[in-house]
Amino acid sequence: MTIRVLCYGLGSIGLGIARLAAQRADLQIAAALDVDPVKTGRDLGDLLGGPPADIIVTNDVAAALSCQPDIALHATGSSLSQILPELEVLISAGIRVVSTCEELAYPWATQPQVAVHLDRLARSYGVTILGTGINPGYAMDALPLMLSAPCATVRTVHVTRVVDAARRREQLQHKIGAGLTPEAFAARVKAGVVRHVGLHESLYMLAGAFGWQLEHVDYRVEPVIAQKSIETVYMQVAAGQVAGIRQIVSGRIYSKEVLRLELQIYLGATNPRDEIVIDGNPPLHVTIEGGIPGDISTAALVVNAAPTVMRATPGLATMSDVGMVHWRG
Amino acid sequence: MTIRVLCYGLGSIGLGIARLAAQRADLQIAAALDVDPVKTGRDLGDLLGGPPADIIVTNDVAAALSCQPDIALHATGSSLSQILPELEVLISAGIRVVSTCEELAYPWATQPQVAVHLDRLARSYGVTILGTGINPGYAMDALPLMLSAPCATVRTVHVTRVVDAARRREQLQHKIGAGLTPEAFAARVKAGVVRHVGLHESLYMLAGAFGWQLEHVDYRVEPVIAQKSIETVYMQVAAGQVAGIRQIVSGRIYSKEVLRLELQIYLGATNPRDEIVIDGNPPLHVTIEGGIPGDISTAALVVNAAPTVMRATPGLATMSDVGMVHWRG
Repeated sequence: MTIRVLCYGLGSIGLGIARLAAQRADLQIAAALDVDPVKTGRDLGDLLGGPPADIIVTNDVAAALSCQPDIALHATGSSLSQILPELEVLISAGIRVVSTCEELAYPWATQPQVAVHLDRLARSYGVTILGTGINPGYAMDALPLMLSAPCATVRTVHVTRVVDAARRREQLQHKIGAGLTPEAFAARVKAGVVRHVGLHESLYMLAGAFGWQLEHVDYRVEPVIAQKSIETVYMQVAAGQVAGIRQIVSGRIYSKEVLRLELQIYLGATNPRDEIVIDGNPPLHVTIEGGIPGDISTAALVVNAAPTVMRATPGLATMSDVGMVHWRG
Repeated sequence: MTIRVLCYGLGSIGLGIARLAAQRADLQIAAALDVDPVKTGRDLGDLLGGPPADIIVTNDVAAALSCQPDIALHATGSSLSQILPELEVLISAGIRVVSTCEELAYPWATQPQVAVHLDRLARSYGVTILGTGINPGYAMDALPLMLSAPCATVRTVHVTRVVDAARRREQLQHKIGAGLTPEAFAARVKAGVVRHVGLHESLYMLAGAFGWQLEHVDYRVEPVIAQKSIETVYMQVAAGQVAGIRQIVSGRIYSKEVLRLELQIYLGATNPRDEIVIDGNPPLHVTIEGGIPGDISTAALVVNAAPTVMRATPGLATMSDVGMVHWRG
């Protein structure tokens, strides 16, 4: 059975999703939706830099839904409150959703009322919705969870993700504050602008699946200062300026730190990797050399999750309960 | 809701399962079953070397079933044909099953008729059955599959598991042929005695989930020769004698090797590890330092799979489709 896909949102990640979906034997793109006037009216294949796909990008949700998609692969934003109306329309039309929205990855702890509302709505229409991506959704939550499967006990989990932003898209390099002075960085942190959405979602997903009631959650964000000048395709950063960001979220029970997720994204990062250390029985030390690259992997996770979501129990799912997501040729 | 567990089979792995199940807040041991006259009639807590559990080990299946377990944690053998009657009784009584039986991990390719029979029976009684363990069931199949989730394409997967048998139980040291002469080893390989059941199951689970039709499957087994004398708690091995076993199973499509699973289990193994290399987009190189220890992990996987199996779709499940298995406190 071919799964009919609505590509909802055609930014850089959304176009990556569309590109992968077009290559899959088990998926068929039924419609493509974006509000950008530069993109609407054009053939999706044209936007992908390939042959015509015979899919004209529309900005009209009703027109997209009339193509009878089974599932929407959704990539329009990080804020759950902003995308909520889009989700409601899809769910009410009986369309399953896999979204890159970071706050949708595990809204049960951070936005419980929205989570309950979405879960009820999805159940009442018999559809499953899931937020996923590399982070949150995989590297710092689903993968550590899966790695706990052979453990008889787990005492603590430490996850470290180090990303060399020099190889990432321009938007991300600006997002992490690269090129700012330390003072300007501090001002942006204070204003809540420099922030990678998702660390809390990963923390609470792990705690929820482990059955841990966290008594205290700490979060801090600090700049990584360039030790020497760095030049990327998009910018030049002098020594002493900000090269990127280090964020740490940790959860404690009885004043003992049981979960610690550290994300470093900066230009010229040394030893980029994904590292997961489980203190338990047995203890496990897992390293992914070089780390999982962000953009292609987020698109891949969304596409690879589509068949899993198609056969999942209706409701608001998370990567910890949706069933195994894996690549398929 | 507490899950009522039948501990079925109380060998070394079965006792490990019972020990972990007794510690879990979400599980309650309802009954314990074993045919060994040394064990029947005794309190399970006594067998576990702890306080009384108020569970008397029985050899009577009907008596065990009368305790109304929800799920059997089953560890009686590696051969599917041998345990089949046990599974049929459990399924027909409406009991879900998680079994350490290696051949049950993925019988769809190696014993398709038995797989179809079990799947139909399990569906008709509305229960899920699953074979799992560290290998097959996790290290060389479910974990590589989970690691493919962030990949847009997968061309080949190589899994290497190196186990230092010196730290494992006596039964395993004999099973891998440690202490034999190379000639005696060759004779036992020819007789099919020296063999770790499960590599083919892992190979076919990966191929099935990836949607790959393997055209050719190669299997070879060879001794690892001791370079110097080795002494364990259980045996002494002279230089030139067999230290253990190396087994490789590989699958080809169009004469190209796409899957290669290599398992080395020998006394004094250098650089014990689990290593998974995915050639794809992105490529991934994952290492678990020291490797996942076998015995405790198999028991943990069985116990950790119980809640997942309780909420799974009825039928014969595999680790590739059953839903995420993870530790829970």
